[in-house]
Amino acid sequence: MSRTTSIYDTSNAAEIAQMAATKGLIETGAFFHGNRWSYGTSSNYSVVLSHDPVRILITASGRDKSKLSSGDFVVVDDTGSPIDPKYPKPSAETLLHVVAAKDAGAGAILHTHSIWGTLLSDLYADKKGFKIEGFEMLKGLAGINTHASSKWIEIFENTQYIPDLATVVRERLLDPINPLKHGYLIRGHGLYTWGRDLDEARRHIEIFEFLFELYGRRLSIH
Amino acid sequence: MSRTTSIYDTSNAAEIAQMAATKGLIETGAFFHGNRWSYGTSSNYSVVLSHDPVRILITASGRDKSKLSSGDFVVVDDTGSPIDPKYPKPSAETLLHVVAAKDAGAGAILHTHSIWGTLLSDLYADKKGFKIEGFEMLKGLAGINTHASSKWIEIFENTQYIPDLATVVRERLLDPINPLKHGYLIRGHGLYTWGRDLDEARRHIEIFEFLFELYGRRLSIH
Amino acid sequence: MSRTTSIYDTSNAAEIAQMAATKGLIETGAFFHGNRWSYGTSSNYSVVLSHDPVRILITASGRDKSKLSSGDFVVVDDTGSPIDPKYPKPSAETLLHVVAAKDAGAGAILHTHSIWGTLLSDLYADKKGFKIEGFEMLKGLAGINTHASSKWIEIFENTQYIPDLATVVRERLLDPINPLKHGYLIRGHGLYTWGRDLDEARRHIEIFEFLFELYGRRLSIH
Amino acid sequence: MSRTTSIYDTSNAAEIAQMAATKGLIETGAFFHGNRWSYGTSSNYSVVLSHDPVRILITASGRDKSKLSSGDFVVVDDTGSPIDPKYPKPSAETLLHVVAAKDAGAGAILHTHSIWGTLLSDLYADKKGFKIEGFEMLKGLAGINTHASSKWIEIFENTQYIPDLATVVRERLLDPINPLKHGYLIRGHGLYTWGRDLDEARRHIEIFEFLFELYGRRLSIH
Repeated sequence: MSRTTSIYDTSNAAEIAQMAATKGLIETGAFFHGNRWSYGTSSNYSVVLSHDPVRILITASGRDKSKLSSGDFVVVDDTGSPIDPKYPKPSAETLLHVVAAKDAGAGAILHTHSIWGTLLSDLYADKKGFKIEGFEMLKGLAGINTHASSKWIEIFENTQYIPDLATVVRERLLDPINPLKHGYLIRGHGLYTWGRDLDEARRHIEIFEFLFELYGRRLSIH
Repeated sequence: MSRTTSIYDTSNAAEIAQMAATKGLIETGAFFHGNRWSYGTSSNYSVVLSHDPVRILITASGRDKSKLSSGDFVVVDDTGSPIDPKYPKPSAETLLHVVAAKDAGAGAILHTHSIWGTLLSDLYADKKGFKIEGFEMLKGLAGINTHASSKWIEIFENTQYIPDLATVVRERLLDPINPLKHGYLIRGHGLYTWGRDLDEARRHIEIFEFLFELYGRRLSIH
Repeated sequence: MSRTTSIYDTSNAAEIAQMAATKGLIETGAFFHGNRWSYGTSSNYSVVLSHDPVRILITASGRDKSKLSSGDFVVVDDTGSPIDPKYPKPSAETLLHVVAAKDAGAGAILHTHSIWGTLLSDLYADKKGFKIEGFEMLKGLAGINTHASSKWIEIFENTQYIPDLATVVRERLLDPINPLKHGYLIRGHGLYTWGRDLDEARRHIEIFEFLFELYGRRLSIH
Repeated sequence: MSRTTSIYDTSNAAEIAQMAATKGLIETGAFFHGNRWSYGTSSNYSVVLSHDPVRILITASGRDKSKLSSGDFVVVDDTGSPIDPKYPKPSAETLLHVVAAKDAGAGAILHTHSIWGTLLSDLYADKKGFKIEGFEMLKGLAGINTHASSKWIEIFENTQYIPDLATVVRERLLDPINPLKHGYLIRGHGLYTWGRDLDEARRHIEIFEFLFELYGRRLSIH
């Protein structure tokens, strides 16, 4: 009697999930690049394939986000290293994704490098952030239920040594009094945000980028 | 002898109308989201299927407007409740659609959440509105026949308790002296407008959003 | 012996030319609307099918420019009247097209209603125009050969009585000393330009709209 | 015995390379025009087919960049002359491409004519340039490894006599102390940049245009 293998055995289910995540991030790249949020091979995106052990599907270093294909992705572990030598070099900022996956429980992490985000991250760097309040759009951030809310947009100094920045972000995420939530800006560099899945992470990107443009345009008016 | 049923009997005609309305709102969502008028699952759209009894096809709560499908819509009655338990939860602002259908005679109601609309709704909230005049584009609003017109853009305070806002809007629509016409802004939240059908409502959205951007950019110039 | 008719006899050639012009203007509408230059059914476009007698293919009144079809066009004569009762009502501004065809020798006439064009047409109305100089882009206007040129953008007051405006424009086109060239703005209303054919008219639209946005953004900087 | 010719003999390989380059530039034109970086037939693009002898595939003069086809390209030699009389007239600025190919080792050269690039090239012409520093995006320029970099954007005066400008650019590229790198602006006219191949040249365009818009918008804020 022949033994049949279900297409839903563990390894295949994982493979299907990885394919779906890849497809979702390719589509995300086309949309973000079309919005000028990922120019010049900047920015990077990931989906968490599993939390235990940590397996993150993330864009490889230096790829054109307007035309990603399956060869432009890497699966990394909780040290940010590729789990297989077949993969290309992951994004230089992979550790920021690992921290969001482990310490913020993220299911997907997105980094955009928009003009308004970059501008505000530089303009308010000395104050380490700026406050947005009174806008209905804030309600789209997970856990916020009224427009009468106030959101502090935290800004970290940029660095070329990402492990240091990852440590600082981790401390803020785990802060017992006032933990960092939803996302943050890096000076002159753009936005990191995340969600329980790719849909929520994309919603958060849209909300932050909307609020940054709104805030920036407001500054041009007297 | 067999009995045949015309495909044009009442229930089928209603079904076809609902399908056409759904298709029109799906296409509207793609266009509005592409214009950054419906980011972060914000905004909502409806078509009035009948006025007596009131039956309104409206977007369900919290859907991504860039990729609506038929499962993202609800039919509600004049209390804003779904007419069938099969439907998902309607938009939290459904009562504002009901009021426009009943008291402004609207055939379609559209809400956008644009950057310029949100910015102006906040900037002029204390004055409860602002005036636009002298622009040819005003002639595109139903019933306005000359550019030498003046349009007061009314702003209501935002609230998380929509029935209160619906009551205030209703009073303004029924004001015997100076009734509210064409649409209004909600502070920090965006635009509501409507028309006798979806085409007219979309035309009104384009006109208001054009005028808001024009007005906003003018403020940046000395 | 049977008589055969060439598909290239006069009437068929005219029919083919009209079909090609219709196709060109439909595509123009999609592009212009996508650029927010023709919102709210504003603006209108034409191709001159013949100069003697004057036959102009022009958009009908009040059509959505994002989705024009062959039923959205009219052929008019030198009085701006449809040559056949089968046609819908032509654009209210048809006489401005007739004047450009007759007195500027235009082969195609395009009117856009952009935000920057509208803003500048209002801001400089009292001075009846503004000057643009020193930009390479000016060389794209027919007959200008160096960036070291100066172009006066003429602004006419808006009116709801188009025959009066047509007369004023005609006088300026026929001015023996300093004739109006390339195009003009109408206050709070937008741009009219033309070219020897549709390609040149579209090039002129792109150049003017580029220069308006450049000029407008420059005004926001100190 | 018959003699067979490999499809990979020299002339065929060259032909295939030229076809690929043509396809790449057609796609580049559609993207740039869609971004309003190549309006009114402005701007021009090239790929270097060989350096020895110099053979450059470049856009012909005066073509609409939104819809380039293979007939809109010319192959020129190191004097900027077409290598075959079958070709149309090359871009008037062909010598600037020749200089970048010969003296900067470029594999592809791209010129955009954007609103922000044009605006800044005029605003800072008297200072012959402006400095951008502290932005992560600078790292996308070939050879820059940290955001803590400073990039001087050099501006040359515009001219209608391109050989003179080509000589000035050449001198700056060959400057033994402080050679011009990555690209430059021409006053009121836009950006020239290049890369070792078309992908790198496009990346440089995206980076410069991002930084110009960022810089320009920053100037509108107090």
